[in-house]
Amino acid sequence: MTKDELHFIDHVATLLVPWGMPQTTGRVYGFLLLQTEPMSLDHIVEELELSKSTASVSARQLVESRLAKRHAVRSSKRILFSATDKYDELYAAHCVLLGEIGALMKNAADDVATGAASKRLKDMSRFLIQIRKTIEGVMQR
Amino acid sequence: MTKDELHFIDHVATLLVPWGMPQTTGRVYGFLLLQTEPMSLDHIVEELELSKSTASVSARQLVESRLAKRHAVRSSKRILFSATDKYDELYAAHCVLLGEIGALMKNAADDVATGAASKRLKDMSRFLIQIRKTIEGVMQR
Repeated sequence: MTKDELHFIDHVATLLVPWGMPQTTGRVYGFLLLQTEPMSLDHIVEELELSKSTASVSARQLVESRLAKRHAVRSSKRILFSATDKYDELYAAHCVLLGEIGALMKNAADDVATGAASKRLKDMSRFLIQIRKTIEGVMQR
Repeated sequence: MTKDELHFIDHVATLLVPWGMPQTTGRVYGFLLLQTEPMSLDHIVEELELSKSTASVSARQLVESRLAKRHAVRSSKRILFSATDKYDELYAAHCVLLGEIGALMKNAADDVATGAASKRLKDMSRFLIQIRKTIEGVMQR
């Protein structure tokens, strides 16, 4: 890999840490973003100098977060990974989650929380549901 | 804790897993959301039946993601944690990150990526920057 590629990969990882993503998972994501074709775990291990188990955990986390896609290779045990190009699906999933968390907080505000905690949940719920509607508006355009 | 409280805590954690948050960290966040006052690590450990080190890592992750706040107690070594009520700050930080990732992807699309990877980065960048602008619009209201 070139110095610029490595720099991009590390930069992506650093920016994703505040979203709760482990640095290594972010590096695997950054690597996948630069690839034009799905990559095997062995390839990821080699390029990023990771252990196979670390790479495997990272790839699984990316698939769970819908940032990467898993490809089974026909008549082979090999599995390939690629960065998702359905970034709007990413945000669609984000919107569904915002709505679910918003609804959960709204219900909990009356049922399980009291005082300041109840008010905080109601305020957060209102805010998250508004954000959700707005993002959905962007996606429909 | 009541059954409803535990249910809420587990539900919050489950909804946050797809955003890349470990289940235990999500449970600590759910617990903090229900509290009207900042809680000590010992209290979190006891209520959620966690080890002190797990609770400590979880609390730190929440502070890093800006979902929780850390309170030092004057003339004591105790540290307390509370769920943030500045949820708009949460999204303000989200917007800054969206902008940074968008900019990084836009630059990388020309400098370090080629072909399909370059196009994907450009598309993602455009989309993320648009989402950012829209969310900022909601927050200014």
